[in-house]
Amino acid sequence: MSEHVLVTGGAGCIGSELAAQLLERGHRVTVIDDLSSGKLEHVEPFLENPSFHFLRGDLLDRAVVKAGMAGVGMVYHLAANPDVKFDLTSPTDKDLKQNVLATHLLLDVMKEQGVKRLAFSSTSAVYGLSPVQPIPESASFLRPISLYGATKLSCEAMISAFSHLFGMRCWIFRFSNIVGKKVRARGRTVISDFIHRLLENPRHLRILGDGRQAKSYLVADECVEAMLHVVERAQEPLNIHNLGCRDATTVRRIAAMVVEAMGLRDVEFSFTGTEGGWPGDVPRFILDVGEVAKLGWRARRTSEQAVAFAIESVLEGMREPACKP
Amino acid sequence: MSEHVLVTGGAGCIGSELAAQLLERGHRVTVIDDLSSGKLEHVEPFLENPSFHFLRGDLLDRAVVKAGMAGVGMVYHLAANPDVKFDLTSPTDKDLKQNVLATHLLLDVMKEQGVKRLAFSSTSAVYGLSPVQPIPESASFLRPISLYGATKLSCEAMISAFSHLFGMRCWIFRFSNIVGKKVRARGRTVISDFIHRLLENPRHLRILGDGRQAKSYLVADECVEAMLHVVERAQEPLNIHNLGCRDATTVRRIAAMVVEAMGLRDVEFSFTGTEGGWPGDVPRFILDVGEVAKLGWRARRTSEQAVAFAIESVLEGMREPACKP
Repeated sequence: MSEHVLVTGGAGCIGSELAAQLLERGHRVTVIDDLSSGKLEHVEPFLENPSFHFLRGDLLDRAVVKAGMAGVGMVYHLAANPDVKFDLTSPTDKDLKQNVLATHLLLDVMKEQGVKRLAFSSTSAVYGLSPVQPIPESASFLRPISLYGATKLSCEAMISAFSHLFGMRCWIFRFSNIVGKKVRARGRTVISDFIHRLLENPRHLRILGDGRQAKSYLVADECVEAMLHVVERAQEPLNIHNLGCRDATTVRRIAAMVVEAMGLRDVEFSFTGTEGGWPGDVPRFILDVGEVAKLGWRARRTSEQAVAFAIESVLEGMREPACKP
Repeated sequence: MSEHVLVTGGAGCIGSELAAQLLERGHRVTVIDDLSSGKLEHVEPFLENPSFHFLRGDLLDRAVVKAGMAGVGMVYHLAANPDVKFDLTSPTDKDLKQNVLATHLLLDVMKEQGVKRLAFSSTSAVYGLSPVQPIPESASFLRPISLYGATKLSCEAMISAFSHLFGMRCWIFRFSNIVGKKVRARGRTVISDFIHRLLENPRHLRILGDGRQAKSYLVADECVEAMLHVVERAQEPLNIHNLGCRDATTVRRIAAMVVEAMGLRDVEFSFTGTEGGWPGDVPRFILDVGEVAKLGWRARRTSEQAVAFAIESVLEGMREPACKP
């Protein structure tokens, strides 16, 4: 059934892929994005599509959210502070504003306008340093160690309450690390970070942490397919699903793969030596994806295949002059 | 060891009892309270004590928080929106401001001033409609159904992140329903609510819900003793403890107890008939208090004894002309 869908953060890596897949399925799509990290080039292919509407604006501006909500039947709320790296000297309210306050405002406008369905991009970071691995959705250990993870858990809690109080149906997706061809901004993922550093200095690569951090990677296209798959099938008032693959890749392995893909040799690695890459980094995790498997979805690529795909497509994108990082 | 302690919400029912017990133990106590629900009469007995300092002000005002934080070694953060009852037509941002934003600001000032220890009053409402009863702290089912519960869980998540990032030691207490002699304001607890209604009309009592709601009650004095007991003994970076007793009392039973204590007869009960008393009310819960028992603390009163004590002391307080509700 075709409907009108709002995608917040729809000019981002995942959001623009979602917009594309929704348009392909015949839906009308409104995107709100302030282009602080999303890029206009990501939605450029849809700008002439009459079913697509782009609204540049801030989710903390109620007028923007109300304008984007007009006539909408469902919201995919992907906008967030994408900078998961945190510096202890940084202000502590960035995630609070961009995650908690923006999500509350969105929920409040949904309530006001009677919009009853919401999908939300949460994160594996809500689990913190889970003693259980792979981590199931039912993990009792929700003790985030980053402001990013803490504020995403805050959003989940508010969604849970709004869902119950105002009869909304909501889907919360706890993403593993998402990579893809559009994630090319410097430092945004370990992959683009390594590529940029090696372009600058092809003989030496400084690696944050001890290199033994091991995380689960998923390609953005597959992540979006999974979201659409689950939204069609999971029909509880509140549905919480991990999205990831069944294994993990170490940072050291990613470094070796990038070096090889770039055709480099004899690159010297150095390590900052801490357990995590930055304050609040969860050094090792694998999500239990049994619940989403029960609904008939599983990642096509292993974590390493996802990383290899992302390396290839970032390098390819850099070779395309029209599509600069 | 004597130290300087900040108690937010220290003019409230629990906060003023905590201030009293801290002063008895030889600590210096600063209270911040905006008296929106706390009462000056609750801290009046300490105002001439040179170890006590009262600061009337808003926790959303950074200058107030900074002033209250001066020289402090530990914070007991009890201030919150005490109105757990919610009306679907009310604004949805009251708990967001008074719980989430106030707690973030407090944590940020603690970080800035290097204050490293925090105890926080959370709530059984973070669990939502838990399928497991009694509910252990490790319950995976953290799906709050009220904005009060959701924002308290948000505060817990932020405390978890700040604790990890900035090396704080924190204690989170998930309270059951707290009652006591000071909780006399109309509608604040089911007990004071019933007493006020029966004073107005001693022949009829309207009961929110179906009367079968069954919750665990704990007297404020015991709650404070438990907090101090746990803070001395639990020394993880992040300590989360349920505080309650081992059983529960139904609303219908409380109504009968109030009627009897007031010496009334032939009171007709009517019920609004919903499962919970108000939107977001968790109709039935008992907390698993095994973790706090391991530390050597358990409630002296059963839930029904706590209710009986509260009824008696509220009625007694009403008979004292100096201490009006």
